[in-house]
Amino acid sequence: MSHLLKKRKLDKNVQENLYFDSYSDVTIHEEMIADHVRTNTYRTAILRSSDSIRGRVVLDVGAGTGVLSMFCVQAGAKKVYAVEACSIAEQAVKIVKQNQMDDRIEVIRGTVETIDLPVEGVDVIVSEWMGYALLHESMLNSVLYARDKWLKPGGLMLPSKAELYISPINDLVVEDRLNFWCTVKDQYGIDMSPMSEFAKKCIMNNDIAINLVTVEDVLSHPSRLAELDLHTVTPEQVASVRGTFSCECFGSAAVNALCIWFTVSFPGDDKPLVLSTSPFKPETHWKQAVLYLDSPRDVMQDTKVVGEIHMYPSEESARHICIHVECAIGEHKKQSKTFSIPDGYSEAQQ
Amino acid sequence: MSHLLKKRKLDKNVQENLYFDSYSDVTIHEEMIADHVRTNTYRTAILRSSDSIRGRVVLDVGAGTGVLSMFCVQAGAKKVYAVEACSIAEQAVKIVKQNQMDDRIEVIRGTVETIDLPVEGVDVIVSEWMGYALLHESMLNSVLYARDKWLKPGGLMLPSKAELYISPINDLVVEDRLNFWCTVKDQYGIDMSPMSEFAKKCIMNNDIAINLVTVEDVLSHPSRLAELDLHTVTPEQVASVRGTFSCECFGSAAVNALCIWFTVSFPGDDKPLVLSTSPFKPETHWKQAVLYLDSPRDVMQDTKVVGEIHMYPSEESARHICIHVECAIGEHKKQSKTFSIPDGYSEAQQ
Repeated sequence: MSHLLKKRKLDKNVQENLYFDSYSDVTIHEEMIADHVRTNTYRTAILRSSDSIRGRVVLDVGAGTGVLSMFCVQAGAKKVYAVEACSIAEQAVKIVKQNQMDDRIEVIRGTVETIDLPVEGVDVIVSEWMGYALLHESMLNSVLYARDKWLKPGGLMLPSKAELYISPINDLVVEDRLNFWCTVKDQYGIDMSPMSEFAKKCIMNNDIAINLVTVEDVLSHPSRLAELDLHTVTPEQVASVRGTFSCECFGSAAVNALCIWFTVSFPGDDKPLVLSTSPFKPETHWKQAVLYLDSPRDVMQDTKVVGEIHMYPSEESARHICIHVECAIGEHKKQSKTFSIPDGYSEAQQ
Repeated sequence: MSHLLKKRKLDKNVQENLYFDSYSDVTIHEEMIADHVRTNTYRTAILRSSDSIRGRVVLDVGAGTGVLSMFCVQAGAKKVYAVEACSIAEQAVKIVKQNQMDDRIEVIRGTVETIDLPVEGVDVIVSEWMGYALLHESMLNSVLYARDKWLKPGGLMLPSKAELYISPINDLVVEDRLNFWCTVKDQYGIDMSPMSEFAKKCIMNNDIAINLVTVEDVLSHPSRLAELDLHTVTPEQVASVRGTFSCECFGSAAVNALCIWFTVSFPGDDKPLVLSTSPFKPETHWKQAVLYLDSPRDVMQDTKVVGEIHMYPSEESARHICIHVECAIGEHKKQSKTFSIPDGYSEAQQ
């Protein structure tokens, strides 16, 4: 379906409604709870922070089914305000009651920007706000709004840090898909090789592709692009995240894309606990963000892939991110390209 | 994303544009050519009909990349008119040229309802017009229009017959998904079982689900619902397809859905060649259409599942089908439900 056409038809209010509606279906919540890396890292982080949570007041921003709020009660929270704008809040109320936590958890239906809390401030803010490529659907702004309005001085953010990483990759699935058209002749006696060029245009376009990248496709160690300290980062900084990268290739290969992923960290006494969406780690429902280059390049061992990234909200919708890439591979001329996540591509549709 | 909201925003012209745009992406064409059951059955049927095709004039309705037109040239066609409304027609032109068939195949960009042919009539009409649940996106109307306008008396339709089948099924994937919420407590110490009821409402809704049904899930022999003779069926008949069914269950199970699929047949001297999308046969990109019942019922060996089906275009969009089901399982009261394919669910998005 043409994204352009859809975009033209959707005004801002409709977009907001679609955003909140998309989280009212069960599929996204099933996917999130079933994402063991996600759910278990949050649970471990919350239980590990029980010294900071026990007897304290917690705010859960975008609580969904309320699972993080209930982990906070397991960690000893005195009171949790579970703020959720979607109708899934009705399910959260039932689940909280089923777990006999309704004396500790208050589910509040609304956006953090519009609701009010019956307290002066909170000791802890917990939120699972990360979207594809970290910032897609940018619920982070709501978390920062809540932090600036309600978090007491010295209060705790869970998670407390986010980092973005990048590596050049050789996307073999795409290579196979482009090559498919050259295999038709052997099967059916029709030469369909002219389709490869068309397929390249369709597949390696300006969309940010959300794919599972296998570790075999990754061509270098990760380069860290950016770090957001969630205690101090401002909405202005989030609206324009810039980073540079420099990678050295493992060996001979063809770079046809860049792969971006993120980690978030939870503070700890000895060392932080990290929720990673790296292709080198067990898969999560966030997969990785793949940016296809217009000009794939052959690389050898130690060939440098260097460049700059700029992430910012799209003009059409503040919830959608754009990524502008400038990239130089070896001695080749720098190439640049601007990507965005297709309209309608929310976590709810995966 | 809310289908209701989207529906409200899309007027008829936009819907038509979306329909034709969706076939301009490479993915659907890759999926169709790579569907070996589809492509190979068409190829075999066309080559087997070479006595009727050799030296004759063929019309290919909705030619796409032109692959069926080229099979017709392989079968000896004198001239093939490949009519295609989407921009994929530009690729068809290139591929036809690459195969040095541009003296035999004329690609015509447009709809069969609006283009003109430089001949009085054609001897053969070939078309791969079938959508999900046979009639979704109903390109069949265009094929019938072309037949009534251009097919010479005694001319050949490829395929020449379509049939619809139904069986009661136990969809295990859905049972697992509903049960998932009862497993959360063991993993994370939170009782999320209230979500099962919500999940049931979300998943077993009024959408026609396009799923791969495994043969183990099928609970009876198929019952044939309807047959369309493509030489004689009228657009009025296609706009209201009715059928009855009666199935006897294999053994003890829980019926939670009905599964509908189709076959199309190509005429042959000895016996027709059948392209089947049955769950008992190798999978195709059409998968099967699954209709979830509001009241699942336990059945035993020989329990009867009987009922009626009515398929008709939705009021919002003539290309979208609705299926109304009346169904009685054993001694249980008859249940009825009306289903439709979610808006925006075209083959291009699979």
